[in-house]
Amino acid sequence: MILLAVQREVVEAALERILPAEGASPVALTSAMRYSVLAGGKRLRPVLCLALADVCGFCGNTAELAEVAEAAAALELIHTYSLIHDDLPCMDDDSLRRGHPTCHVVHGEAMALLAGDALQTVGFEILSTRPRGPAHVGTRAEAAAMVARAIGVDGMAGGQALDLVETGRTHEGEEARTLLRQIHAMKTGRLLAVSASLGALYAGAPADLRREVERYGDRLGLLFQIADDLLDVTADTATLGKTAGKDSAQAKLTYPALFGMEGARAELDRVLEEACDAAHAVEGRDGILSALATWAARRDR
Amino acid sequence: MILLAVQREVVEAALERILPAEGASPVALTSAMRYSVLAGGKRLRPVLCLALADVCGFCGNTAELAEVAEAAAALELIHTYSLIHDDLPCMDDDSLRRGHPTCHVVHGEAMALLAGDALQTVGFEILSTRPRGPAHVGTRAEAAAMVARAIGVDGMAGGQALDLVETGRTHEGEEARTLLRQIHAMKTGRLLAVSASLGALYAGAPADLRREVERYGDRLGLLFQIADDLLDVTADTATLGKTAGKDSAQAKLTYPALFGMEGARAELDRVLEEACDAAHAVEGRDGILSALATWAARRDR
Repeated sequence: MILLAVQREVVEAALERILPAEGASPVALTSAMRYSVLAGGKRLRPVLCLALADVCGFCGNTAELAEVAEAAAALELIHTYSLIHDDLPCMDDDSLRRGHPTCHVVHGEAMALLAGDALQTVGFEILSTRPRGPAHVGTRAEAAAMVARAIGVDGMAGGQALDLVETGRTHEGEEARTLLRQIHAMKTGRLLAVSASLGALYAGAPADLRREVERYGDRLGLLFQIADDLLDVTADTATLGKTAGKDSAQAKLTYPALFGMEGARAELDRVLEEACDAAHAVEGRDGILSALATWAARRDR
Repeated sequence: MILLAVQREVVEAALERILPAEGASPVALTSAMRYSVLAGGKRLRPVLCLALADVCGFCGNTAELAEVAEAAAALELIHTYSLIHDDLPCMDDDSLRRGHPTCHVVHGEAMALLAGDALQTVGFEILSTRPRGPAHVGTRAEAAAMVARAIGVDGMAGGQALDLVETGRTHEGEEARTLLRQIHAMKTGRLLAVSASLGALYAGAPADLRREVERYGDRLGLLFQIADDLLDVTADTATLGKTAGKDSAQAKLTYPALFGMEGARAELDRVLEEACDAAHAVEGRDGILSALATWAARRDR
């Protein structure tokens, strides 16, 4: 998608502005932070945030755009924090991420732990200080609170904990599917949904439009997760940039495991339809948002 | 001190309100969070915040006081996050904290990691949502930003990283003392200083008073650290509630190691005098703040 490529440039530039500079003290810490953030990735959360800001009619000046891009990029810092901690030996113990050795393999466990910690912190620092100026103070407080709710006990961290506890246990039938949906929604869905909502917030969208945006973000998050589950089965490690086939090796609850490949693809199509519905409610027609959803759903084909 | 005892009651009640309820889902995560936060401790950061709010003339109503107490208690969540991560096997690998087995000993490494992560997040959620109401929105955004700066790369996390890198290396003379001061200021000083500043912020203190409060918080932070370094040598494990003598066993940079016991005590007296000076500038006389500093300095006697 053109959108993804263009926005990603903006996000990369914003990331460079909000990250500690190369060689900044303490070097061991800032190198570990930069290593993982700048290892690449789709930058989906910031891109989604900026796309929604656009669609909702963001009309700030150049300085405000740069600051909103920085706030959007903060979502990538927070996402990266979760990846670094998730890869640690006491968690998934993974050695490959975004096509590179994981943070703790290169920088050691202690520094990887601190890099994740500090990336969460810098994320909140940026969210609570951008866009600058007294006119945006309410936006800043609300953005920090929204993201905190999305990544805390009822969101990302809680989803990780549920995943840890439930992996390896036997789950069957409807109970298993409910649990799978809950874990996915918490682990990745809520941060993706809030990334979309933030875009609407930065554009000053009214409450009813923000609710539609949230519904779209929520569906898009689920879509990505189902597609990721499928890719873990169908793609190889080189394509993924992370260890393929890991989910089934760890007996994780996944869509292919619970629905079978065909069932999971059917579920993907169903959620794509819901995402496009929500996209129409926001855009009023087929546009960037439904294209983004379709792209997300077709990654494994 | 009467102050400490009274304020601590208020803080304990606020902690119960901002923590996930007992048995809240996911239980494995919320139990680990509650375990470490409710293990006790001096609650110094919240108490300091509330003391400064009082001294600076806080005059909110009962509801606002309760919300400010919650914001102050968020500082304890953030402090506890740092303790949990600091105790992990890949960091200090400690098994005793606040007189109880450490979080990872009881709840496992993975859940301890997530509990620390989530405590940082909930900390920012509370800081960016209390005190409530449109009148306080600027305060909320500023409080979150202030704390983020104090615990990030240039603060707590950076100090931990420096400590990790420098422990075991040979340092001598003035260079060693400068490094020691820097590590202490970053690791613990900045969060203590910002705890004091937040109290002034919540009381609506003017900028010049806030600067004096910051100076006081900064000196008090250093005071506590020197006293802690001394206690690590003079007190036993039962009194401390954490492993005594650990600093020298790990060849950490400490005041007794670099200045000797007498030199460290002289340094403590010097900093106490500075803290009392700053306290006078805030209170205009001997009051709560100089009493607090004196109490902090005399803990090892």
